[in-house]
Amino acid sequence: MSQKYPIDKRNKVKRIPKRGHYDHETVNSILDAAFLAHVSFVIDNQPFIIPTAYGRVGNKIYFHGATTSRMLKAMQEGIPVCICVTHLDGIVLARSLFHSSMNYRSVVAFGTAQLVEDPDEKMKGLEVISDQIAQGRWQEARVPNAKEMKATSVLSMEINQASAKIRTGGPGDEKEDYDLPIWAGVVPCHIKYGDPITDPDSKKDFPIPKSALKLKN
Amino acid sequence: MSQKYPIDKRNKVKRIPKRGHYDHETVNSILDAAFLAHVSFVIDNQPFIIPTAYGRVGNKIYFHGATTSRMLKAMQEGIPVCICVTHLDGIVLARSLFHSSMNYRSVVAFGTAQLVEDPDEKMKGLEVISDQIAQGRWQEARVPNAKEMKATSVLSMEINQASAKIRTGGPGDEKEDYDLPIWAGVVPCHIKYGDPITDPDSKKDFPIPKSALKLKN
Repeated sequence: MSQKYPIDKRNKVKRIPKRGHYDHETVNSILDAAFLAHVSFVIDNQPFIIPTAYGRVGNKIYFHGATTSRMLKAMQEGIPVCICVTHLDGIVLARSLFHSSMNYRSVVAFGTAQLVEDPDEKMKGLEVISDQIAQGRWQEARVPNAKEMKATSVLSMEINQASAKIRTGGPGDEKEDYDLPIWAGVVPCHIKYGDPITDPDSKKDFPIPKSALKLKN
Repeated sequence: MSQKYPIDKRNKVKRIPKRGHYDHETVNSILDAAFLAHVSFVIDNQPFIIPTAYGRVGNKIYFHGATTSRMLKAMQEGIPVCICVTHLDGIVLARSLFHSSMNYRSVVAFGTAQLVEDPDEKMKGLEVISDQIAQGRWQEARVPNAKEMKATSVLSMEINQASAKIRTGGPGDEKEDYDLPIWAGVVPCHIKYGDPITDPDSKKDFPIPKSALKLKN
């Protein structure tokens, strides 16, 4: 069993506790299978959410901070941040609407974001994000130059606390409902990548690179 | 042109403003094409995010409030809520990592959630959520009984303010980068539904219903 995040009222899964997981291994496996997170922060008691790409290394999450200047400014001041990553795995159609549900894997992680100032860590953070989106693309494409690095902000968030929530399997109906003349089951789903579309503005034909082909799998 | 949400610093798209949209039609089209939202709220200056199913009618969003008792309690007190819905449409692999991006459609909506107390509106709210997930399932399955209705909480949020953000199309590289020997393009993606899997605990064979077949398309 891998290390566990501390559990208290902030991250404890209250509704259907058996779906809750707190070990780093489960949390990381869910984080590593995605690259799009929803990041929440508070300004003047108003919650904001921003969808953003991210990358994980150890217990650290990297993301771009330039989404809005306000987010960046607020996060530089070291405000609490909540990050959520959700995979939808299926629609569970039970005999009763009450027990109809979704199959999913989600993580909610808490921490404080901070600006990455060290140039090497900043570049590494961008590579981590790039790798999480399209593994290997960092080696294929042109890396950021000094001007672009200046225009880019990278934030890191050490995960202080997290919980994962997972639902799998078929419907769990009330005993008497199994006699109803109603079909029940699961419609699975996942993110499907299509064929890579070459930029029509390309000056020459280049083979589709590994990073793009890997996405399609 | 449909009605627009008021624009101020809370919802104004600052980074790449041309991607921002504020008209109800655009906002609603993005909301209607999904059923999974990320909902953010604040307790003691700590932001929380919860992924949850929702349904839209007019400018109102309905969702279940039972995810955590804390969320429910906080929302009953009428605290500000931020809802975000994001569709990932593709990975944009530019020649430079700096211009690499994603194609997406997202909505950020602000309002105050409240408990739906009227029994008719509560039942209607559940139907709206059910329809948004699997259109027609409400007519096929067993509707909630009195006991189940008691165990279920429905919240509604009138959208006070919202913004949509959309990116489409191919990479937009620096002029000189088009001469680099690097493939560039887009890998499109979408949520793909698989074949419905009948519950192995079914007592009889029933044909797969319309609601499940519709998801697959």
